[in-house]
Amino acid sequence: MTQPEMPILESPNCPLPIADRGQIVLGHGSGGLMTHDLIRDVFQSRLSNLILNSANDAAKITEAPPGKHLVISTDAHIIFPLFFAGGDIGRLAVCGTVNDVAMLGAEPRFLTATFILEEGFAINELEMVIDSFAEACQEAGVELIAADTKVTEKGKSDKLFISTTGFGWADSNLRIGGEQAKPGDAVIISGPVGNHGVAVAEARGNLGFSSQVRSDIAPLNHMVKALLDAGLDVHVLRDPTRGGLATTLVEIARQSGVNIELDEEKIPVDKPVLKTCELLGLDPLYMANEGKLILILPTNQAEDALRIMRSTLYGEQARLIGQVLEPSKGQIWLKTPFGTTRVLEMLAGEMLPRIC
Amino acid sequence: MTQPEMPILESPNCPLPIADRGQIVLGHGSGGLMTHDLIRDVFQSRLSNLILNSANDAAKITEAPPGKHLVISTDAHIIFPLFFAGGDIGRLAVCGTVNDVAMLGAEPRFLTATFILEEGFAINELEMVIDSFAEACQEAGVELIAADTKVTEKGKSDKLFISTTGFGWADSNLRIGGEQAKPGDAVIISGPVGNHGVAVAEARGNLGFSSQVRSDIAPLNHMVKALLDAGLDVHVLRDPTRGGLATTLVEIARQSGVNIELDEEKIPVDKPVLKTCELLGLDPLYMANEGKLILILPTNQAEDALRIMRSTLYGEQARLIGQVLEPSKGQIWLKTPFGTTRVLEMLAGEMLPRIC
Repeated sequence: MTQPEMPILESPNCPLPIADRGQIVLGHGSGGLMTHDLIRDVFQSRLSNLILNSANDAAKITEAPPGKHLVISTDAHIIFPLFFAGGDIGRLAVCGTVNDVAMLGAEPRFLTATFILEEGFAINELEMVIDSFAEACQEAGVELIAADTKVTEKGKSDKLFISTTGFGWADSNLRIGGEQAKPGDAVIISGPVGNHGVAVAEARGNLGFSSQVRSDIAPLNHMVKALLDAGLDVHVLRDPTRGGLATTLVEIARQSGVNIELDEEKIPVDKPVLKTCELLGLDPLYMANEGKLILILPTNQAEDALRIMRSTLYGEQARLIGQVLEPSKGQIWLKTPFGTTRVLEMLAGEMLPRIC
Repeated sequence: MTQPEMPILESPNCPLPIADRGQIVLGHGSGGLMTHDLIRDVFQSRLSNLILNSANDAAKITEAPPGKHLVISTDAHIIFPLFFAGGDIGRLAVCGTVNDVAMLGAEPRFLTATFILEEGFAINELEMVIDSFAEACQEAGVELIAADTKVTEKGKSDKLFISTTGFGWADSNLRIGGEQAKPGDAVIISGPVGNHGVAVAEARGNLGFSSQVRSDIAPLNHMVKALLDAGLDVHVLRDPTRGGLATTLVEIARQSGVNIELDEEKIPVDKPVLKTCELLGLDPLYMANEGKLILILPTNQAEDALRIMRSTLYGEQARLIGQVLEPSKGQIWLKTPFGTTRVLEMLAGEMLPRIC
């Protein structure tokens, strides 16, 4: 099949700008003219930078600074619905990955992304998502340097899935990781938990009432930088996303081989989140967060850490919530307000699917 | 919802090994116990390495060698069906990204991957894919260092989508890219074109007969290394995937601002591919490839390049197929066996969706 000759960088078969035609069609995934048009009109207009614009199939980035390690993280984002109070899949896809890179003490610099589009998806919704994606990149201080778009037939995907991979440089001598919690350390949470899970449940129409809860999606790299710049001896940083605070702490306890004791009364939970969870029989400790971090460090540095976190945009409500106990197989003990103690386990099944 | 206390690293709710339960369920995407079991049983057992096993949400890799740039590429793989003659989505997800990294002259070293699974997908098929993924990693010499799995409800995705991101180091003084083609350069293809497209069309039941064609999916990084180790002055390397040889050459011609002349008789096409395309009214120059590369370099180095390529596993049928002409807006002229010339354009719509 020979293609007709046509002027360069225009497509006479598609005389209208893409946005006016309104919907994703299979041809947008062909790798040919329509793909080029979509990338130019929807993506490059919002995410332009020198590396991305070089238009090769791979991106070449700067040499690593001496004494720095490269830190990399990847995440698929399949959240339903795409838009909800406090965010959308675009902001989520940036912040989720930026935060994972930051949790190893790295400064996130670059992102790559793949976009899987469903035939029939409204292009104005795609544009809203890419606007939000670009805004989150700017807030976090990262650049998109490579991307790929694919299109499935209608009914073979669900509007839009975004996978992102993030890169950053970390000081080679940093030892931050889930396996670094030590007996005597303090356990700090950067703010109230459960908001993202409740906001998404509500957007899905699962509540039957308005909770007024907004997702907490936010890039946490500036908070991490402030902590590291202060020279604190950070042992663990982790964002409690899927599975919530409880599941993430179990992971850390097992990786480090320690028990951790939490004081339930000290764990911040916004009232509307608590109320909604009580009504639905859910536990906010297992609800997903997208803008919170767990910090574990020596107890004598906890006050400094709290002061620094509270001075940052997303850490005003940071709280000391527990401490690391003796070496063990890794259990989380929750002291309740009634003086009893219960063991927290990982989330076993699925409380709310497609939460991130 | 408190989880019952349970032994560490086992899940009493799931007494059978995952493979015996047979299907992906939403709980596999929860981030909790079932996700951990799936990752351990299906992924880590096949893709174990020190970095991946560290079980943090991001991977920390070595410092960059001095004088090297980091090269990064990303791709979403949504091919239908998952299995076809000559390959599957696992081999594709590795080779597609390894090749994009290699096309900038880098040695691919690491991969990250996201796996979007559909509820109900057979776990034994997932295991076959991950076996193939692991085998391709080994052949290419790359390690998976970070991954993420998500699960959608049945009917909201199509069995399995894999996004991969690849990383490698390239000499900082290399200048390889689609914009580097120069008048007088030779244009070489590493082997016959169109096999992948035909093999996938057949696996889809679109042909109505058996073509005997197998996909050419292969990692091309060892071929690229052989060319660079020989000190050749490589200007352009590009793998003609979606949109085929024609679309990829149009991209290069436009990036470099040159015309390119091809000799149709010299372009290698396997007989069964040619026959199938003729029967279906398709043009093999627009059919996807997954194990071929276009090499553009000074004509006086073409013979050396062909000799080197033919000595490698996937380059035995490498051919000189054309030359770079004068600076221009970027057109591809195809000299036909009948003495006429036609202009090749990019693929305009979609010849075969979900080809990679």
